[in-house]
Amino acid sequence: MVIPQTHRAVFALAMVLKTIHAIDNGLALTPQMGWNTWNTFACNINEDTILGAAKALKKLKLDEYGYHYVVMDDCWSLHQRNATGYLQYDPVKFPKGIKHLADEIHAMGLGFGMYSSAGKYTCGRYPGSLAFEEKDADLFAEWEVDYLKYDNCFNDGQSGTPLISFERYEVMSKALNRTGRPILYSMCNWGEDSPWDWAPTIANSWRMSGDIINVFDRYDDRCPCEDYICRLPGHHCSIMNIINKAAPLGQKAHAGAWNDLDMLEVGNENLDYEEQKLHFTIWAMVKSPLIMGHDITHTSDQALEILTNKDIIDLSQGKWGIGYRSYKKTNSQLWLQDATDNSGNMVIALINNGEKDDEFTIGFEDIFLDEWERRKAGYKVKDLWTKDDLGVIEKKIKIKVKRHGIFVGR
Amino acid sequence: MVIPQTHRAVFALAMVLKTIHAIDNGLALTPQMGWNTWNTFACNINEDTILGAAKALKKLKLDEYGYHYVVMDDCWSLHQRNATGYLQYDPVKFPKGIKHLADEIHAMGLGFGMYSSAGKYTCGRYPGSLAFEEKDADLFAEWEVDYLKYDNCFNDGQSGTPLISFERYEVMSKALNRTGRPILYSMCNWGEDSPWDWAPTIANSWRMSGDIINVFDRYDDRCPCEDYICRLPGHHCSIMNIINKAAPLGQKAHAGAWNDLDMLEVGNENLDYEEQKLHFTIWAMVKSPLIMGHDITHTSDQALEILTNKDIIDLSQGKWGIGYRSYKKTNSQLWLQDATDNSGNMVIALINNGEKDDEFTIGFEDIFLDEWERRKAGYKVKDLWTKDDLGVIEKKIKIKVKRHGIFVGR
Amino acid sequence: MVIPQTHRAVFALAMVLKTIHAIDNGLALTPQMGWNTWNTFACNINEDTILGAAKALKKLKLDEYGYHYVVMDDCWSLHQRNATGYLQYDPVKFPKGIKHLADEIHAMGLGFGMYSSAGKYTCGRYPGSLAFEEKDADLFAEWEVDYLKYDNCFNDGQSGTPLISFERYEVMSKALNRTGRPILYSMCNWGEDSPWDWAPTIANSWRMSGDIINVFDRYDDRCPCEDYICRLPGHHCSIMNIINKAAPLGQKAHAGAWNDLDMLEVGNENLDYEEQKLHFTIWAMVKSPLIMGHDITHTSDQALEILTNKDIIDLSQGKWGIGYRSYKKTNSQLWLQDATDNSGNMVIALINNGEKDDEFTIGFEDIFLDEWERRKAGYKVKDLWTKDDLGVIEKKIKIKVKRHGIFVGR
Amino acid sequence: MVIPQTHRAVFALAMVLKTIHAIDNGLALTPQMGWNTWNTFACNINEDTILGAAKALKKLKLDEYGYHYVVMDDCWSLHQRNATGYLQYDPVKFPKGIKHLADEIHAMGLGFGMYSSAGKYTCGRYPGSLAFEEKDADLFAEWEVDYLKYDNCFNDGQSGTPLISFERYEVMSKALNRTGRPILYSMCNWGEDSPWDWAPTIANSWRMSGDIINVFDRYDDRCPCEDYICRLPGHHCSIMNIINKAAPLGQKAHAGAWNDLDMLEVGNENLDYEEQKLHFTIWAMVKSPLIMGHDITHTSDQALEILTNKDIIDLSQGKWGIGYRSYKKTNSQLWLQDATDNSGNMVIALINNGEKDDEFTIGFEDIFLDEWERRKAGYKVKDLWTKDDLGVIEKKIKIKVKRHGIFVGR
Repeated sequence: MVIPQTHRAVFALAMVLKTIHAIDNGLALTPQMGWNTWNTFACNINEDTILGAAKALKKLKLDEYGYHYVVMDDCWSLHQRNATGYLQYDPVKFPKGIKHLADEIHAMGLGFGMYSSAGKYTCGRYPGSLAFEEKDADLFAEWEVDYLKYDNCFNDGQSGTPLISFERYEVMSKALNRTGRPILYSMCNWGEDSPWDWAPTIANSWRMSGDIINVFDRYDDRCPCEDYICRLPGHHCSIMNIINKAAPLGQKAHAGAWNDLDMLEVGNENLDYEEQKLHFTIWAMVKSPLIMGHDITHTSDQALEILTNKDIIDLSQGKWGIGYRSYKKTNSQLWLQDATDNSGNMVIALINNGEKDDEFTIGFEDIFLDEWERRKAGYKVKDLWTKDDLGVIEKKIKIKVKRHGIFVGR
Repeated sequence: MVIPQTHRAVFALAMVLKTIHAIDNGLALTPQMGWNTWNTFACNINEDTILGAAKALKKLKLDEYGYHYVVMDDCWSLHQRNATGYLQYDPVKFPKGIKHLADEIHAMGLGFGMYSSAGKYTCGRYPGSLAFEEKDADLFAEWEVDYLKYDNCFNDGQSGTPLISFERYEVMSKALNRTGRPILYSMCNWGEDSPWDWAPTIANSWRMSGDIINVFDRYDDRCPCEDYICRLPGHHCSIMNIINKAAPLGQKAHAGAWNDLDMLEVGNENLDYEEQKLHFTIWAMVKSPLIMGHDITHTSDQALEILTNKDIIDLSQGKWGIGYRSYKKTNSQLWLQDATDNSGNMVIALINNGEKDDEFTIGFEDIFLDEWERRKAGYKVKDLWTKDDLGVIEKKIKIKVKRHGIFVGR
Repeated sequence: MVIPQTHRAVFALAMVLKTIHAIDNGLALTPQMGWNTWNTFACNINEDTILGAAKALKKLKLDEYGYHYVVMDDCWSLHQRNATGYLQYDPVKFPKGIKHLADEIHAMGLGFGMYSSAGKYTCGRYPGSLAFEEKDADLFAEWEVDYLKYDNCFNDGQSGTPLISFERYEVMSKALNRTGRPILYSMCNWGEDSPWDWAPTIANSWRMSGDIINVFDRYDDRCPCEDYICRLPGHHCSIMNIINKAAPLGQKAHAGAWNDLDMLEVGNENLDYEEQKLHFTIWAMVKSPLIMGHDITHTSDQALEILTNKDIIDLSQGKWGIGYRSYKKTNSQLWLQDATDNSGNMVIALINNGEKDDEFTIGFEDIFLDEWERRKAGYKVKDLWTKDDLGVIEKKIKIKVKRHGIFVGR
Repeated sequence: MVIPQTHRAVFALAMVLKTIHAIDNGLALTPQMGWNTWNTFACNINEDTILGAAKALKKLKLDEYGYHYVVMDDCWSLHQRNATGYLQYDPVKFPKGIKHLADEIHAMGLGFGMYSSAGKYTCGRYPGSLAFEEKDADLFAEWEVDYLKYDNCFNDGQSGTPLISFERYEVMSKALNRTGRPILYSMCNWGEDSPWDWAPTIANSWRMSGDIINVFDRYDDRCPCEDYICRLPGHHCSIMNIINKAAPLGQKAHAGAWNDLDMLEVGNENLDYEEQKLHFTIWAMVKSPLIMGHDITHTSDQALEILTNKDIIDLSQGKWGIGYRSYKKTNSQLWLQDATDNSGNMVIALINNGEKDDEFTIGFEDIFLDEWERRKAGYKVKDLWTKDDLGVIEKKIKIKVKRHGIFVGR
């Protein structure tokens, strides 16, 4: 059977999503969802803060929308390993131990995530796992950990070429596999050495930039790169900075192996309603893990509305390919996402990153990039945020988008 | 005997083409020509589709113009190697086996091309040849394969410096040589790590960019580089994007070792007549392999006219050096190609990549770049597409070129 | 206890400064201060010049402000090692030996600094320590050296990737530690291979650019890079050149591990009073080592006033985080520095690098970058150079700054 | 004794020139001078052409001006090594052998230069020395070779990081030293991997760009880089292209270890009188080897006048530091060169690379860059091409320079 030229791209992607997963732990077939301690608590974590967050997640029924993992970030251990070289949890913070914490979280039907670093120290300068990978993986498996966020600080110069970074992160990948327990492996090397090229065979996701900050769009010297190739990923990266870096990388992800755009800033101060919707939509479309970072015990109604938009979550977890950008102009960007169910459906998202509300016209030549035949048809469009039906459009579509807002139609 | 200064460049090239070939398999002394399954069929291949294409190629007498190889791309194997570590063809797609397919193709007087990847998996996630090079080369030789396209997906971080990439691709080069069967070795590492510097001693051709798409000239985030040094080659690279990347690389090719600009998009939708002629001409001038990618069983008359222009094919297969660019302006580019038969002949090609038909004047100072004496003479010019005789020109030449078109004079 | 979102950044930094130091020698918990021979004497050093400088430092009571180390730079040795492979001091320059010199300096209550290079030769082409690290460290410890400046010349190609540079500098780090004597380890590899990523676990400070020159702001081919990623660091780097390179790097430093912006040019010709104050302020704010380089025996009153401004020295040695830049405009830059004592105090510094005196308005949105709540309050401001009290400001601050000058308010 | 601040730069350089040479063969204490076969004869060399050139060099008395080496470039050998792995000269081109040729050249009082490549093949695809370094060095010493130009073609991926390139070129350096015969080692790796950083300890000179062409200033795709960091050095590099790349590199050279800007194009067509003087002057000022490349048997009077200007040759061979550029403007560049004899003398050279004759004013602030005191004095100036005395100038100097010309005053 001949596949028509016009469906080539869609076909290729559909096929890929059905076949084997490069890292054979069977996890993250859709991007992982959950919550992480760092952005709210930083080092100030303990059993109560974490269980409190897990309970809030349950109470808000966020687990029913897919938010499954409660991830404990840095600063959970003592500053020294024990006499036999194992990490030790801080008994002041965790009087009943980490295993107990995992049990409690499992009892709620949630997954439990752990943190370490592929370095001599973690970023908070606790002991790192470099040269202790097997011991640490064994301990995490014994504690029934379901997820490992694995950072990049203090790596003793073991970066700078893809092979050096690959080999460093591969050691933990193998150590986790050897335990026999499926543990989602979330690499956090900030996009250094192009992990999208080599992480898919060893990890379920990889960070592709420096750390996010709750700022929409501002250059910050602490996140100096504008490009996905970056020698100083840093932190204080704005939403738009990360979106621009992510645009070329979607092609490298597939089921079980995702680009991670860092945690969500939905529900944090500094970002208005439009900005938060834009942020959440693009994270979903490019199939980044959706890990909340706000103080979940004080989730506003607005934040909850955004985090539980089923149409948007479907872009992440449903039968859609990975979103890609059609164009980037001074004040707007057009993003596209193809269905993988052979329906021919398509999502279009128009970002208004300008400083005022505006109207935009999108021509079909910017939607069907290399499929001229499809430009001739008409399509029904629905707004995925307002749920409005926009009727049938032909040749072009005209829409109003608020300042720092997004239109998402399907 | 003193070689006049004015003929220095031509002389050096002529000499080079007569001497030894760096990779000693005696193949691709001129750039290989043929057809490949991927752009039409992607993974949906089987014995019938491939033999159907081979028969169409014969019926159209394309073999008489030099199109010799029928190359089977990705997705021909099972997802597992057999118990002794050998690749296995998919018996549903190839009920009579690959050897039978090769025999049929050989019976038509054509060459048979195979595909694998220098990685853990192929790009379609079938088993790759990394760490299995000798077994796979032996199997390919046993199947009487004539050509290997060797891809770059899932290479486990074994890229990033020329030496790492060289060593990875050299293993297969040696394995192929060891079989005793001459197998044209077509490297496909998308120009990563400057293969033009190190591939000439181990391969017959090397891709120099990301994958081509049937678009004349449009920036696409999935092919984000504008330059030949590129850390994310990607795909959806337009014709002009590839031409611009190729311009500085011609100097690195020689007989038996060619820059590969990727498959031809002649005969595919989206490109008009002018664009297809431009595309085919430059591919011939820079001595890229000429591998068709359209649905050959539905070749239009227009596509056939282009693919069988003997004057243009002669630029690829005849006594001409490798084309190089004289200048690049906003809406035009001038390309040159020197004869290697000491005739002093020269080809000039003027690209109009602007958005309207236009007239251009080319001064001799842009044709005879470092040979001032030759600027004083007059030359007879023939248009290689219209076959018009343009008479004798002096000092400059004035020509009209259509939007997205090319003038090629000799 | 929940840490309010608004204090996240300050909190994280405060924590870091209290915990362990990556290089475990307990030194440079605040940036080192002192004086170095090179910029005044180059190779023309001897016992008298060095002791003369040490005495001048004491006489000016600079030690009471924190200037502790007297560092002897290149050219102190003979051109050959001795028969057993040890370095030999030049007996003409040091008739009583180096140990005697160290004793004299210790007797003044000062620390004594030594120089060598991680190469075959030093930059002045005396024997370097590459492959002799243990012998040299032992000798330095025997001489009771307190500080080692370790240069990068003639390194036999052992640079170009972080790992190669890390391993080269790590050898000396271990050799120094092995001696049992705490010796401050001051790496001088000019920012090659991103030392901020890998030096913190092995050194107390690392140079982050080429050598400084006493010029405020002039491009010089001998210091060709404008960016912190640089393949030819060179020398003749102007004050503003180094400031611009340093801006993104502050995030990588912490107690015991500092970015070194090179020696101070305070007190040298070519820089006017405003330029010197600007230079000294930023060096203090980004917590560079403060190593004087002028002819200390001829210190002008103006230079002394600058070098002994306690408010500015406090930015380097007191309870302040590492300064970072808020913005860079054509003629001005805004730098910020957060207190680490939970006082919520902040330092703002406005650089006028334009060619005339000017007035500037700084909005609170450029001061409290990701803490919107703090933008609503009022703050008392004091000028750290004039000591003027500027009263309480709200929403914005308006200030006049001289050409090439700086305003520093707290 | 205190060295005045104002003389620091001059002093440092003077010292360097007096001390040891990094590569201990005692050669090239000033930049080597001579003639090379390639640019005139390419592969068409034999005993007669080479001896003919040597005789012409003697007849023109060029040896009395310092032109000492006659260098035989590529294509002197057979295409195969002999049974014991040694290179064999081509007996048709050299019926009496290479040793005889060397003897003849020595008999004229000249030095004899040989060619090979640090690769599998030479650039002309004859056997290269990679993996045969000791055999080849022994043979060259046996033939009494005085000089080796060592090229970079077909290096099997052994480039891309400084260490890989260093190690490859170091093997030959050691092999040459081991022979006991002083052989000037002229590295030709086209500036790949920053040889100025690592070649000074193993070679007497290193090429810093792609190959020169006899064109004053034209972008050519075959020499695509404008910068000294370049991944595709290529050839067809214009005079101005090379000058711009060389500007930051002078700081890396010293006695016995020079940046090589490639062969002279003086005496070739395409360059006018002004362009040739400019070219020769800058090559001398930056202390590049001065290796003629024209057809020396047909040397014009004009070419001879240029090549034998003693004032200019003195800039290369006399007591002068390495030239550096003060500024680069659209149509002009100012170059400076300090005396090393403590005379305080200085050379200033003003390039007019604009398209018309013009008048230029040079302020003293652009001559005495970091020595403000010297700006106050007056200086006598002499034109080194016209020999005119320009009298005493103060504060600034006003001069007329022809299109593509140079003014050199001392």
